[in-house]
Amino acid sequence: MSEGAPTSREDAARLDSADPFRGFRSQFDLAPGLIYLDGNSLGPPPKAALARLQQTAAQEWGRDLIRSWNSAGWFDLPKTCGAKIARLIGAADDDVIVADSVSVNIFKLVSALLMDRRGAVAVFENEFPTDGYILQGLSNLTGSPLHVLKAGDDPFTENVSVLVVSAVDYKTAAIADIAAWEKRAALHDASIVWDLSHATGVLPINLARDGADYAVGCGYKYLNGGPGAPAFLYVRSDAGAVRQPLSGWMGHADPFAFGKDYEPAKDARRFACGTPPILSMSALDAALDIFGSVDMRAVAKKARSLGDLFLTLALAAGFTTVSPKPGEPRGGHVSLEFNHGYEFVQALIARGVIGDFRAPNLMRFGFSPLFLSYTDVWDAADALIDILHTEGWRAPEFSRRDKVT
Amino acid sequence: MSEGAPTSREDAARLDSADPFRGFRSQFDLAPGLIYLDGNSLGPPPKAALARLQQTAAQEWGRDLIRSWNSAGWFDLPKTCGAKIARLIGAADDDVIVADSVSVNIFKLVSALLMDRRGAVAVFENEFPTDGYILQGLSNLTGSPLHVLKAGDDPFTENVSVLVVSAVDYKTAAIADIAAWEKRAALHDASIVWDLSHATGVLPINLARDGADYAVGCGYKYLNGGPGAPAFLYVRSDAGAVRQPLSGWMGHADPFAFGKDYEPAKDARRFACGTPPILSMSALDAALDIFGSVDMRAVAKKARSLGDLFLTLALAAGFTTVSPKPGEPRGGHVSLEFNHGYEFVQALIARGVIGDFRAPNLMRFGFSPLFLSYTDVWDAADALIDILHTEGWRAPEFSRRDKVT
Repeated sequence: MSEGAPTSREDAARLDSADPFRGFRSQFDLAPGLIYLDGNSLGPPPKAALARLQQTAAQEWGRDLIRSWNSAGWFDLPKTCGAKIARLIGAADDDVIVADSVSVNIFKLVSALLMDRRGAVAVFENEFPTDGYILQGLSNLTGSPLHVLKAGDDPFTENVSVLVVSAVDYKTAAIADIAAWEKRAALHDASIVWDLSHATGVLPINLARDGADYAVGCGYKYLNGGPGAPAFLYVRSDAGAVRQPLSGWMGHADPFAFGKDYEPAKDARRFACGTPPILSMSALDAALDIFGSVDMRAVAKKARSLGDLFLTLALAAGFTTVSPKPGEPRGGHVSLEFNHGYEFVQALIARGVIGDFRAPNLMRFGFSPLFLSYTDVWDAADALIDILHTEGWRAPEFSRRDKVT
Repeated sequence: MSEGAPTSREDAARLDSADPFRGFRSQFDLAPGLIYLDGNSLGPPPKAALARLQQTAAQEWGRDLIRSWNSAGWFDLPKTCGAKIARLIGAADDDVIVADSVSVNIFKLVSALLMDRRGAVAVFENEFPTDGYILQGLSNLTGSPLHVLKAGDDPFTENVSVLVVSAVDYKTAAIADIAAWEKRAALHDASIVWDLSHATGVLPINLARDGADYAVGCGYKYLNGGPGAPAFLYVRSDAGAVRQPLSGWMGHADPFAFGKDYEPAKDARRFACGTPPILSMSALDAALDIFGSVDMRAVAKKARSLGDLFLTLALAAGFTTVSPKPGEPRGGHVSLEFNHGYEFVQALIARGVIGDFRAPNLMRFGFSPLFLSYTDVWDAADALIDILHTEGWRAPEFSRRDKVT
């Protein structure tokens, strides 16, 4: 446990009163009393996002209609929204667009790299599944070999051109050293596509400084952009990957010239494809404004402290974890192992503490620092420990398995 | 001009009073007095779509949060929404999903077909540009030759495996005979991917009856699903294209098993990829309910009558058209040629008549039958002819070219 960590609820309350983000919860539309430890999966709505959605729907769509492509900036939204994310990940504004999903964006970047230079693609077997699935599909289509790596394997062997890897592991929240990985990749003339889904909005990321050329990430986790919010894609301006095969009209240098030949836009917009879902993207765009004045190092520090507090209390009660221990570098969530994790998470939800379950036995809890307090986390740990001691998870109503997430 | 067509505004008003859809405009949130002839580009909001969006944002996202993947049916939305579209295009419910964009969906279907059987892909040079752009990208990635056809060319030569073609031409609104094309394709063992973007919601389509196995289409035109609404994809259950390379987790048979190997879902859901934009998709889902009780043959008949009326008056005033003439089969829009079409459309907009301009010289007007009346169309033609006679398009305020659409 880090120094100065609370050892009582009163301690936690004292930390809350000194918290630089203590005023931020009121910017979210979150039910009073709810302890939402699933912002790593679906961030709650910033009030500004709900207001913007209303404005986009009623006024821009309902009144200004087709004109809003110009007057409301819909056409530029993938870039204006991308520029807000660029500032969170240490990228130039023009190097980031918002478009499609993480899965589609991985496909675009990896296939673009393979069009520059054939070779194998690689992914760790414990990567978030969709990253591997996409590489399987791309490998089937192009014939590029796919290497599925075990933890600790050296990916940069056997003609591997592209590695897809997460900056923060979706299960453990272990953090990859981007700069170190990039140095190793450069030695082998290989490229890395970073999946920043579990990192953006909770850690300070500096892609340009760390030598990273390619990345994708998610809009609906710590960025609070709404369910299935569009994803983002980063490509450094002087990097390769000039051509990508999902060359839809929104990536054209001049989409409304309706020219016969595809001419890619010069910046990251060449990775746009079809017409973007404006309602969803507007919500994300407004949600990002919460980060406008925020120091990401302070965000990361608080996320770590909250996670350390929860983990310390959980470990003391006998839980085991796959996550880095208190005091060690870690992303915004922690995962506890429990053989009846599904039922346990249901029991927590019944007490107003929302986490999630990942098969086969992980209970995952996210510590979004912008709307969670130290006392929230104290109370969540209290509920966790009480359910453990009373075996509250054994109640029959918690075992129904009709849920998909 | 078709028999019984109005020859005065009073005639038009008489047709309105007998119109089976006369009550439908009140289901849309459309400004009073506005004559919106651009529903072929962006349909206006059904009130139910705005209400649903509010519900999805405030309650499902804001209150139920992550639980809504189950409780609000988010996970099933691509299929429930797809089933509503299936009924408009003569498909089985399980054969349609809503996902991604038209561009991405074309890529999925054509690449899936190429994985079954290599060969060339083909597209007409006057096809909607993104369709050709996507085939260019896919051809660059896979090495499959791309044939760009001129009007009248036989596409089914030289080892062409897949043709992408629109059911309704985006410029002229000419209608393709789906059954006849499919018969020719079958003779050559080729497949057609139909782009239904300008057809769905305004024409009766019967894909299964007509032997069509593959199609994509747009959610934001006649389906009124909102700006950039997700697109749809149709694949007949006993057709090929079992594997597609954009194999993201939402197309997996069991996405939340988090298995290492991609196992495609058995039905059209195998063409889903990443996490879908739920806010945008919810609006589309609610918008589709307007079609629940609608006879698509009556919709098409009214669209044709409205277009015939407009075109007859425009041709009589001296305009020329690239669209099928009054009385001929035609989709929901008509295009007039005018060398200063951009300025002309601006002049119409200033009078409350919204159409659009397509370079170099086409003014396009859509006749969505669910919210337009015969008197609307009469008045629009009146404004059109007055601007022509007074040269109203020459006013300097109509020549600013800062618009992208």
